Amino acid sequence: MSTAAKGLEGIVAAETVLSFIDGERGILEYAGIAINDLAKDSNFEEVSFLMLNGRLPNKPEFDAFLADLRGAYTISDHTIGLLRSIPATAQPMHMLRTMVSALALEDPNPNSIDIPEVRAKAIRILAKVPTIVAGFDRLRRGLDLIAPDQNLTFAANFLYMLNGEKPTATMERAFDACMILHADHGLNASTFTARVITSTLSDIYSAITGAVGALRGPLHGGANEGVMVMLNEIENVSEAEQFVMNKLAAKDRIMGFGHRVYKSYDPRATYLKTLAEQLANDTGNADLYAKSHAIEKTMDREVASKGIYPNVDFYSATTYHSIGLKLDLFTPMFALSRIAGWAGHALEQLDGNRLIRPKADYVGPHEKPYVAIEQR
Amino acid sequence: MSTAAKGLEGIVAAETVLSFIDGERGILEYAGIAINDLAKDSNFEEVSFLMLNGRLPNKPEFDAFLADLRGAYTISDHTIGLLRSIPATAQPMHMLRTMVSALALEDPNPNSIDIPEVRAKAIRILAKVPTIVAGFDRLRRGLDLIAPDQNLTFAANFLYMLNGEKPTATMERAFDACMILHADHGLNASTFTARVITSTLSDIYSAITGAVGALRGPLHGGANEGVMVMLNEIENVSEAEQFVMNKLAAKDRIMGFGHRVYKSYDPRATYLKTLAEQLANDTGNADLYAKSHAIEKTMDREVASKGIYPNVDFYSATTYHSIGLKLDLFTPMFALSRIAGWAGHALEQLDGNRLIRPKADYVGPHEKPYVAIEQR
Repeated sequence: MSTAAKGLEGIVAAETVLSFIDGERGILEYAGIAINDLAKDSNFEEVSFLMLNGRLPNKPEFDAFLADLRGAYTISDHTIGLLRSIPATAQPMHMLRTMVSALALEDPNPNSIDIPEVRAKAIRILAKVPTIVAGFDRLRRGLDLIAPDQNLTFAANFLYMLNGEKPTATMERAFDACMILHADHGLNASTFTARVITSTLSDIYSAITGAVGALRGPLHGGANEGVMVMLNEIENVSEAEQFVMNKLAAKDRIMGFGHRVYKSYDPRATYLKTLAEQLANDTGNADLYAKSHAIEKTMDREVASKGIYPNVDFYSATTYHSIGLKLDLFTPMFALSRIAGWAGHALEQLDGNRLIRPKADYVGPHEKPYVAIEQR
Repeated sequence: MSTAAKGLEGIVAAETVLSFIDGERGILEYAGIAINDLAKDSNFEEVSFLMLNGRLPNKPEFDAFLADLRGAYTISDHTIGLLRSIPATAQPMHMLRTMVSALALEDPNPNSIDIPEVRAKAIRILAKVPTIVAGFDRLRRGLDLIAPDQNLTFAANFLYMLNGEKPTATMERAFDACMILHADHGLNASTFTARVITSTLSDIYSAITGAVGALRGPLHGGANEGVMVMLNEIENVSEAEQFVMNKLAAKDRIMGFGHRVYKSYDPRATYLKTLAEQLANDTGNADLYAKSHAIEKTMDREVASKGIYPNVDFYSATTYHSIGLKLDLFTPMFALSRIAGWAGHALEQLDGNRLIRPKADYVGPHEKPYVAIEQR
């Protein structure tokens, strides 16, 4: 069997109207709209509506969506009790996977595959996950929980629940843009997981729980943590160039560069880069941005000709750090946003579903007798 | 895009040495050994070793495996606390998905992808899941938990923890055979889910949690419940033939018949059928078996020529009912067994891994401008 088939590279496994990727030309569109236009002019709530409906909302639709979303920010006493029972030492992605799964336990009708019902459940999951993540982080820091504020946007509400104070406009903007940029990206492994699970006509909780598990992997959502670890290894800006040259000479990977899909600049990195710079300056992290920039300059000189450019992880690491997020919350941030895409793909899968069941190539022996254990 | 690609039917997505299926000839082998030989002569513990190692154990290996497995039957106080916090109304598959996920929270090193370590974690998950399922069922019935008995086999221990008394030899044998027969089956949707999740180099808890979610679907693990519901609809044996004829005339599906893979008799049903009959007679359920048999006879006369035969779900329903299992525990029984296969495939995936990332076919518009909400 070829390696290509092993990763299903190039194999079409689903139809979608959500995101379009042209890796050669560096294009990413959601429902036909360029990602940078959305990052600049839209907001994560509109993009979430788009993921769940395949198009942007009009004003009355958007108002109704906001009411549903914000009305579901609060988590139940049962969920809070569960959150309190989770060891402070637990890793956030394992906590998140468990808590998303547990949300099904208080849904009287968790198995529904009726499309409007699934959409409504997805909105509720999307609304509660920030409350869960912020709550877990506060509990493990020994702090009180902060109740969500229904007057705040998705981005501002999360940062408020996490930090206990409302974010600055730049922080909110940068975080909101990160959420927009991570909402969907074709059939990546976590989205594909959500589709495979949904293809058995299983429920949205199962689909999103499975997707969180897939996102946890270092080849997927775990990559932005690696960028931050690398930035921390470089003591100051003047060492960044040499750091990169040493890595390249040793044929080590530079975290946050290159992507299986993009052979040109990751379109998600373009706008994020400007936001990351502004935010770093605002928050006393100019040095961190400078290191990132120095790495990019060296990489551009050395390997851009091979199609290796910064990807979305590279500048989201700087952004998340500037916002004050701990390293192990970087991947959960990816999940916060991607839930919208996962749910959108689950809805698409339900519409004209076919069970996803590929073949395995059996490469072992045949017709072997059963030999009793004493004779083995 | 063709429907075939949508379900990835016929697309090879992985290599395996665990199970071989020849649907045309009705053959299922684990590591080259015919499933019926294993069901008759082996036991679930040996088969679990086979799944995790690609071959049957010798005596010292098996003794060590049994010690590891039985030594891990017990669940921690934290896990028991969590189990007690789950609403009695929760559906067992949602409970199970949540509890498997939560096992990661008490593992100090949950993310390891070192193959021997993952294998050891898989043994512990396999050992604890029966304790979790039996415990949940007792708690929701208002009964005390029964601690596992390390002197008992996997099958006997589960039935003991569930019912509070040791099973008869026939019950243990029939249940053990069900476990053997369900342990692996190529790249079914839940196993494929486990592989996709593992392909991001995510952990075994994520892989198995996701797989439980996929198994929950009515097109996959949920099917054996449907068989029992159907058997309950038929008041007595004399009505079975007419029931089938009416369903066929209405072009309704008969639950437990036909399989995407098998075009001849499902090899898992052959031996199970004899066990189901014996067990039904022993437990006062002869009438239930007789209904199943009457359905099969009618179906054989009417549709066997079209390649529609009973599948493994058909006689496992009778078996599970005769053992005294409640309907909503049928799919968790499938999970109890399939964990061995899921873990085996996760281990195979880790060995020479490649990220599984197929393509989506984008079928929406392009280059649409972002229009402000007031103008939509």
